[in-house]
Amino acid sequence: MIGGGRDAFIGAVHRMAANLDGQIELVAGCFSSDAEKSRLSGQDLFLALGRVYSSYEQMAEREAKLPAAQRLDFVSIVTPNHLHAPIATAFLQQGFHVVCDKPMTRTLEEAAALREVVNRSGKIFALTHNYTGYPMVKEARELVGRGEIGRVLKIVAEYPQGWLLDQIEASGHKQASWRTNPEQAGASCCIGDIGTHAENLGRYITGLEIDSLCADFTAFIPGRALEDDGNLLVRYKGGAKGILYASQISAGEENNLSIRIYGTKGSLAWKQEHPNELTFHPKDQPARILRRGNGYVSDVAKKFTRLPFGHPEAFIEAFANIYTEVTRAIRDRLEGKPAADYDFPTVEDGVAGMAFIETAVKSASSDQKWISLIKH
Amino acid sequence: MIGGGRDAFIGAVHRMAANLDGQIELVAGCFSSDAEKSRLSGQDLFLALGRVYSSYEQMAEREAKLPAAQRLDFVSIVTPNHLHAPIATAFLQQGFHVVCDKPMTRTLEEAAALREVVNRSGKIFALTHNYTGYPMVKEARELVGRGEIGRVLKIVAEYPQGWLLDQIEASGHKQASWRTNPEQAGASCCIGDIGTHAENLGRYITGLEIDSLCADFTAFIPGRALEDDGNLLVRYKGGAKGILYASQISAGEENNLSIRIYGTKGSLAWKQEHPNELTFHPKDQPARILRRGNGYVSDVAKKFTRLPFGHPEAFIEAFANIYTEVTRAIRDRLEGKPAADYDFPTVEDGVAGMAFIETAVKSASSDQKWISLIKH
Amino acid sequence: MIGGGRDAFIGAVHRMAANLDGQIELVAGCFSSDAEKSRLSGQDLFLALGRVYSSYEQMAEREAKLPAAQRLDFVSIVTPNHLHAPIATAFLQQGFHVVCDKPMTRTLEEAAALREVVNRSGKIFALTHNYTGYPMVKEARELVGRGEIGRVLKIVAEYPQGWLLDQIEASGHKQASWRTNPEQAGASCCIGDIGTHAENLGRYITGLEIDSLCADFTAFIPGRALEDDGNLLVRYKGGAKGILYASQISAGEENNLSIRIYGTKGSLAWKQEHPNELTFHPKDQPARILRRGNGYVSDVAKKFTRLPFGHPEAFIEAFANIYTEVTRAIRDRLEGKPAADYDFPTVEDGVAGMAFIETAVKSASSDQKWISLIKH
Amino acid sequence: MIGGGRDAFIGAVHRMAANLDGQIELVAGCFSSDAEKSRLSGQDLFLALGRVYSSYEQMAEREAKLPAAQRLDFVSIVTPNHLHAPIATAFLQQGFHVVCDKPMTRTLEEAAALREVVNRSGKIFALTHNYTGYPMVKEARELVGRGEIGRVLKIVAEYPQGWLLDQIEASGHKQASWRTNPEQAGASCCIGDIGTHAENLGRYITGLEIDSLCADFTAFIPGRALEDDGNLLVRYKGGAKGILYASQISAGEENNLSIRIYGTKGSLAWKQEHPNELTFHPKDQPARILRRGNGYVSDVAKKFTRLPFGHPEAFIEAFANIYTEVTRAIRDRLEGKPAADYDFPTVEDGVAGMAFIETAVKSASSDQKWISLIKH
Repeated sequence: MIGGGRDAFIGAVHRMAANLDGQIELVAGCFSSDAEKSRLSGQDLFLALGRVYSSYEQMAEREAKLPAAQRLDFVSIVTPNHLHAPIATAFLQQGFHVVCDKPMTRTLEEAAALREVVNRSGKIFALTHNYTGYPMVKEARELVGRGEIGRVLKIVAEYPQGWLLDQIEASGHKQASWRTNPEQAGASCCIGDIGTHAENLGRYITGLEIDSLCADFTAFIPGRALEDDGNLLVRYKGGAKGILYASQISAGEENNLSIRIYGTKGSLAWKQEHPNELTFHPKDQPARILRRGNGYVSDVAKKFTRLPFGHPEAFIEAFANIYTEVTRAIRDRLEGKPAADYDFPTVEDGVAGMAFIETAVKSASSDQKWISLIKH
Repeated sequence: MIGGGRDAFIGAVHRMAANLDGQIELVAGCFSSDAEKSRLSGQDLFLALGRVYSSYEQMAEREAKLPAAQRLDFVSIVTPNHLHAPIATAFLQQGFHVVCDKPMTRTLEEAAALREVVNRSGKIFALTHNYTGYPMVKEARELVGRGEIGRVLKIVAEYPQGWLLDQIEASGHKQASWRTNPEQAGASCCIGDIGTHAENLGRYITGLEIDSLCADFTAFIPGRALEDDGNLLVRYKGGAKGILYASQISAGEENNLSIRIYGTKGSLAWKQEHPNELTFHPKDQPARILRRGNGYVSDVAKKFTRLPFGHPEAFIEAFANIYTEVTRAIRDRLEGKPAADYDFPTVEDGVAGMAFIETAVKSASSDQKWISLIKH
Repeated sequence: MIGGGRDAFIGAVHRMAANLDGQIELVAGCFSSDAEKSRLSGQDLFLALGRVYSSYEQMAEREAKLPAAQRLDFVSIVTPNHLHAPIATAFLQQGFHVVCDKPMTRTLEEAAALREVVNRSGKIFALTHNYTGYPMVKEARELVGRGEIGRVLKIVAEYPQGWLLDQIEASGHKQASWRTNPEQAGASCCIGDIGTHAENLGRYITGLEIDSLCADFTAFIPGRALEDDGNLLVRYKGGAKGILYASQISAGEENNLSIRIYGTKGSLAWKQEHPNELTFHPKDQPARILRRGNGYVSDVAKKFTRLPFGHPEAFIEAFANIYTEVTRAIRDRLEGKPAADYDFPTVEDGVAGMAFIETAVKSASSDQKWISLIKH
Repeated sequence: MIGGGRDAFIGAVHRMAANLDGQIELVAGCFSSDAEKSRLSGQDLFLALGRVYSSYEQMAEREAKLPAAQRLDFVSIVTPNHLHAPIATAFLQQGFHVVCDKPMTRTLEEAAALREVVNRSGKIFALTHNYTGYPMVKEARELVGRGEIGRVLKIVAEYPQGWLLDQIEASGHKQASWRTNPEQAGASCCIGDIGTHAENLGRYITGLEIDSLCADFTAFIPGRALEDDGNLLVRYKGGAKGILYASQISAGEENNLSIRIYGTKGSLAWKQEHPNELTFHPKDQPARILRRGNGYVSDVAKKFTRLPFGHPEAFIEAFANIYTEVTRAIRDRLEGKPAADYDFPTVEDGVAGMAFIETAVKSASSDQKWISLIKH
């Protein structure tokens, strides 16, 4: 693991997700650029001292030299955005597989370059768009794929949060500080941090690609260099329309990602804060509440399910499902099996996400109504 | 009553709303331009035959000649949109007060002209933006007015329906036919019919005026001349932002008007299909579920409440609240009292609504991103 | 109308319900045993002074002497419980049809006697167990009747309220005073006032009769002569089991009547505070949310529906549905038509309700576990 | 771990819960009485072959002889009920701490004997009443403890499931088979398996002890020796009243444990299937929706929280919280620290649970209305 030292948020999530199934063992890490902090974090995690590093370059180099039986199989990158690309590149080039947090890079240009590195390396690269790991999201994708809602006409994807309603970055709040800093976060705060999840979720479920979009960005909090609220109208290839918005200044909202998808034969609705349920509303019929773990859900939703119905699963399990598939892919590779059809977000998702972010940023400062999705 | 014969929808609603409190008696009507249908409808309603008319002109004229004690006090106009202005004008000019369904007219020009007529007549004119009649909507307005959510930053107003997902106008569905016909509905179907409710609701609660907007209209059903889905980004005067959308092709949606209002100190959320509840979420505090009929709600919400808590009120009561206020205004007039501060939508709301509709129509066909609200 | 003067609760509800469809006109009343109060109430309601009475005996007598065309068709009795039987008897004996609030009488003995009077009179007698008037309750009955949930195994009927958590009768609260007074309410407060609704609702939907029950009554508020909380285990004829409870001291509860019915093939759930929805959960299938006004509901639910889907109906409309059926029955009688299969609660429901209440009271003071339903 | 081989349910849950925080390592196990199955299960779990046993006696004995640094610290017992006592006894007597699934034993007598063993051993013994591990359950306990809802008047604890509506034990369903078999489950199926959770939950939150109860048990499925549905009226010491029911034949119900607690100043409601929310309804005030992870929740709820608000936690995290506290207790012991006030269910909870189950069983076959809780 690179990043995720004491006080970090997403690093601990990655570790719990990776621990859950007892298939992955944390053996080495560089948890902070501060050597002491990295060391203490490694100690918290019962790591052998010799495998706690204070720079990722050192870690990539030294781990690559270990005998195969000891050497790590893959790294998880859980740093702020601007470090994703250099760290991923370093490890890929040393022959390691990579799991990387989203958004993939700071810029689309970096993303395209990283894609080159991934492709040249032939290594596995997974991006933790974790919300696609939820079984009922996979069920939604199956239902769309089977034509249960007909042709998709409209997608409404919402991602309101409220935690940046105060200027907490001013008093040193770590999570807020890097996200609102263009140097670390890139050209977008709100759309880059969470809007990209909403976009990815819609794409994962429906397969629809954005044709063009129209964005209105606002930095409601004075002194903030990046937007903390972004509202988009979307036109998809093939004629579907969409509304996609993300906000970090919506008082009372926690992490209220939701998506509604309307087709010619029915609709679907899913809310991240109640992830075990998916509403499927066939046209002119009663809405049906599909719940995780039941016999009537598809095989793919079952495959990513650990507990019986009524025993709720949540965020960590969904996150772990990304790791489940990465583990399967790496194991197949180690065992010399041919690659299967793994269900995790790839470098292509990362490039598409960066293209979305940069297009939204471009639109936000343009007087032109519709901005085509930047080629990527 | 003018309009609202057998098979009409909104006429029956107006009658139930007007009946509810036993303050209003239906004494005359022109229920259809088809004389026989008008007569039969009048008979259904126990009217004296002599006061059932087959043209509104005739009705306005004859009723005006009746002795004051017999003469009607006001008319309710519940016809398709294109007839609102001429009928209202006829009755206002004969000295009657008018209750008129929304949208007020077919065009903004007509609306401005009607405003002139109203103002010259000195008569009471009420527009049935009925959703503002709900007690918990009034509570929301009170909370905003008292500063409970601070300065408003963002409004998300949604109004999805699904009933026009099939081309039911092709097989003669009456409600669908006139709403999708530009001759009767005006330049907009979806935004004109229901988007205007969403706009009015936001304005009623927050007092915010639209500065400019950016609209994307779609007629998803082939052969439809007007949009059946409209998505808008909104900029309010003073810096608040908004998303406003309406749809008639959203499978599974019934009449799902909802509004969320985010301020600097908290947020509010209300859903028309569960109208007895209002969620007030103060920043950094638990959400509070405010329910109609409780001691803790404001006096204004109490005033428009008929039943104790837990005995749900709904659509008809909210509609009736418009009539309650109109009745109060007319009674004050009849009793020679000075006009009070009545809480019903007026001709000004009607003009504002038409300006909103026409601006949205204009934006929908423009390449320019932001279209300023048309002066009105 | 007898009862329902200024400050009463249920009288106003009856009037709104009766007004709603414009089929019933209030022409006479005795609104209070206080002549002045009765007169003022009649004036509020625009009644002719000559038809506002200060005693029900006088009213029954004088109205009976009016010419048929002027004479009232039926009376609505909305007084406290102890007056139901004498008033109903007086009017039935003068040849009037009667609508009576529940519980029907103060004792089972009175109920049986009233049944005799009704049967001898040949008049229509309806009891306003208004919750059976909700369209989705009727839908539930239809689903059970059609075998959609198989054989019923278990009924869980809950009716918590919280309004008597303080001893408000001590400070003269009118509604609280008579309900907690055995002289006026009978031998039970909570079960008599609201438990009987829960019992009636279960019987209406499933047709199951109680075989025996086991009750635990509590008067939580010191000084209260009757229970303010009653919990029952129930055994139905044929083997189904039940839990039925009612409470008036459950803080935060408003009027939260709900019922869940579990059968061999599926279950149903309905909540009075969200009356437009009925959850039907077929075994091993997704739950289905059935909503009032849709094409897929049964004809009987449609028949008792006034508004399209998504335009919520509520308490008053359900109440009005009792009046709808009573009106139909009286009109058939007036027009000399044979009686049809009317859907309103009758004197038999009233007797059954009183048997239920008295059995519960008997059980509550017994050491015996199961008390058979008192024959009635 | 003893039990929890391939195809078991709760063993896998224990492992995920124990894995989650990276504080516990599975080093030995006896996963089945079938040696081959145990071996294969151990292999699945990456255990050293030498530490996979085919009998728990052998395991207790051999592990006790290992050097302290290698020896396991504690065992988790996840077998059917009838094996809990002998296995726990064997390990306690060899000096190991024990985590044991619930219900603790097959009989109250066994439970009392096990208590003796635990007390004599001086070892840590934890019972996995996992629902008390949820942060918002702990919050409920805090609120009750702080007097926020006043004196508790009434508890309504419900635990409906539907998975035994068919006689799946007849076709060899493993989970169903032992639960419905008195030899393995003890004298109760439904109340023993899940009713005990409901009882424990109420006791944990309120501290109230049952004084007496009145139970109605039903085996709805022909041929079932134990009840699959149990309904109880409860009287608590000090005057509170309760309804407690559990069911395994409630079609459509998954694992719908819920509890509502009504006090003199307010009420609380929590539902296991939406565990991140707790409704606190102060009397005469709006209900407040308290959500896990917010600053306004108590320190104890925060302490058992891993993710920020809006990132839902669920069943596994709650289960893990039992392990968190057991780990803390064992670590304190290993480090020679004095015992702290650990928050996990103990052998006393297990004895109390068995007393509850046996009292319910006794009541179910008694004609006496109230059966006092068996002394324990």
